[in-house]
Amino acid sequence: MKIVIIGAAGMIGARLARRIAQDGQLGGRAMAPSIPEGWEERCETHMLDIGEPGAAEPFARERADVVFHLAAIVSGEAEADFAKGYRVNLDGTRALFDAIREENERSGHCPRVVFASSIAVFGAPFPGSIPDDFALSPLTSYGTQKAIGELLLADYTRRGFLDGIGLRLPTICIRPGRPNKAASGFFSNILREPLRGEEAVLPVSDDVRHFFASPAAAVEFFLHAAVIDGAAVGPRRNISLPGLSATVADEIAALERVAGPEATALIRREPDETIRRIVAGWATDVEASRARALGFRADASFDDIIRAHLAEAGPTG
Amino acid sequence: MKIVIIGAAGMIGARLARRIAQDGQLGGRAMAPSIPEGWEERCETHMLDIGEPGAAEPFARERADVVFHLAAIVSGEAEADFAKGYRVNLDGTRALFDAIREENERSGHCPRVVFASSIAVFGAPFPGSIPDDFALSPLTSYGTQKAIGELLLADYTRRGFLDGIGLRLPTICIRPGRPNKAASGFFSNILREPLRGEEAVLPVSDDVRHFFASPAAAVEFFLHAAVIDGAAVGPRRNISLPGLSATVADEIAALERVAGPEATALIRREPDETIRRIVAGWATDVEASRARALGFRADASFDDIIRAHLAEAGPTG
Repeated sequence: MKIVIIGAAGMIGARLARRIAQDGQLGGRAMAPSIPEGWEERCETHMLDIGEPGAAEPFARERADVVFHLAAIVSGEAEADFAKGYRVNLDGTRALFDAIREENERSGHCPRVVFASSIAVFGAPFPGSIPDDFALSPLTSYGTQKAIGELLLADYTRRGFLDGIGLRLPTICIRPGRPNKAASGFFSNILREPLRGEEAVLPVSDDVRHFFASPAAAVEFFLHAAVIDGAAVGPRRNISLPGLSATVADEIAALERVAGPEATALIRREPDETIRRIVAGWATDVEASRARALGFRADASFDDIIRAHLAEAGPTG
Repeated sequence: MKIVIIGAAGMIGARLARRIAQDGQLGGRAMAPSIPEGWEERCETHMLDIGEPGAAEPFARERADVVFHLAAIVSGEAEADFAKGYRVNLDGTRALFDAIREENERSGHCPRVVFASSIAVFGAPFPGSIPDDFALSPLTSYGTQKAIGELLLADYTRRGFLDGIGLRLPTICIRPGRPNKAASGFFSNILREPLRGEEAVLPVSDDVRHFFASPAAAVEFFLHAAVIDGAAVGPRRNISLPGLSATVADEIAALERVAGPEATALIRREPDETIRRIVAGWATDVEASRARALGFRADASFDDIIRAHLAEAGPTG
């Protein structure tokens, strides 16, 4: 079995690669037995710009069984640099799909392509819980580029060039790393920083509700999408994934249960009107009935998310 | 006032050009007085392939007040020729918007761009009447390309490069010309052919319901879209237009009222299972509440549509 991960240096892509390497299999199919011992020998890495003409062709020619496409310019940068966002997120995605189409036309090879999309394809106003058949209505260039990727994925699948599944990921929490300036950053910061004994700023009120997937749940989503039956998915190949819907207060309560009041005492309430307004425009949940019916599962609780984070990152993570 | 019509040789584009020439104005703004008498001198026509690199640039440099973009490879051809459909409908549209963006970056000019989209951006299953916030879910490459055009239009508008309005046109009826093999052709054929004393084939049952706009109503939609207040439209710049929802039986009853039983006698019922199945997957109506609130009006009745067709085309039309 051959797998390509485009974007394998990213937060989810790197985890996905590690996890597949640990498992040594995907969907019960072992790697080809001719491959010698030792993961290093079974894996190639390349650093490249997917937006460069021709960059995707060698990977399409590999005839991988599964192509995970997670490479993207993130939301903030795609907003700041219009040309770069479109070049990588739209042109790069289309070039990848076209390279796979050309290989399909040559050899008939039709790989499963799992495309990382985002709830950013939806923009306010929306109902409390976004239905599966809600309009693509992005309010960022990143969301626009992801929505276009979804449309291409569905059409290329319908045409038989590839066998695509697009995943609209919830907001990832707890994000690893240091606090950043993303408007959604505080959802992770108020857990991650206190867990390592550092202060975190909470810019919104405790009753703000949003929906989340842990990095581990996100990896499970990709693994599951790699092996589900395309016929069961039907022509709507882009799927809103279920999230754990929770308020900031729910997060803080879970933190207190897992790490005690000395952790929650490190959360400093510092209301920020700009962030409050941005976050007020976000959805509080997705229905994700199709995804649930297809076997995608949200995290069970924030307690579990926090425990998994601690297990993985350790107290200094 | 300067106007560019991309696709001015097409069914709606040509009518739109004629109508603007007749009116001599758009939105109450007269043409610049420096333009000499005689329409021929006030108008240029160009035959070009909008999908060719650089083709759109000269038009963007014209700094038109309004750009109508109706040029497209139609549904059947975009399905038959994958590369051509994407090259013209996606690359051509994007190149036009990018040329306008580049002119905007040079001069600050921000034209109203009216983009011809289609109900083909929606695919079954849908509710009886498609809501305004229904998912983009095309089931053809044409619908995919139009949906992508919509997303680009909205993002380029949000960015301030242009001031776009996308119009999802209902099925046009009565289409001019001769019967063609389009699955939707019979909706027009069963009126147009009997009106000129010729037989028409009806491949579906009389209770099939769909929704329509006359060519005249379509032109009104474009003219209205050219002048409405963008702020009132909001960030969702693509609008499902209202149609006249009617059954085949309604069409036939109107034909009998306007042209008598000798006309309806020319309709030959010849059930076609393929067409029946295709048409069964189509929507029967759109809600179009936003469009109505913005002042877009559907045709009042099929009687009026037939009378307008006769007035324009004559009994041999």
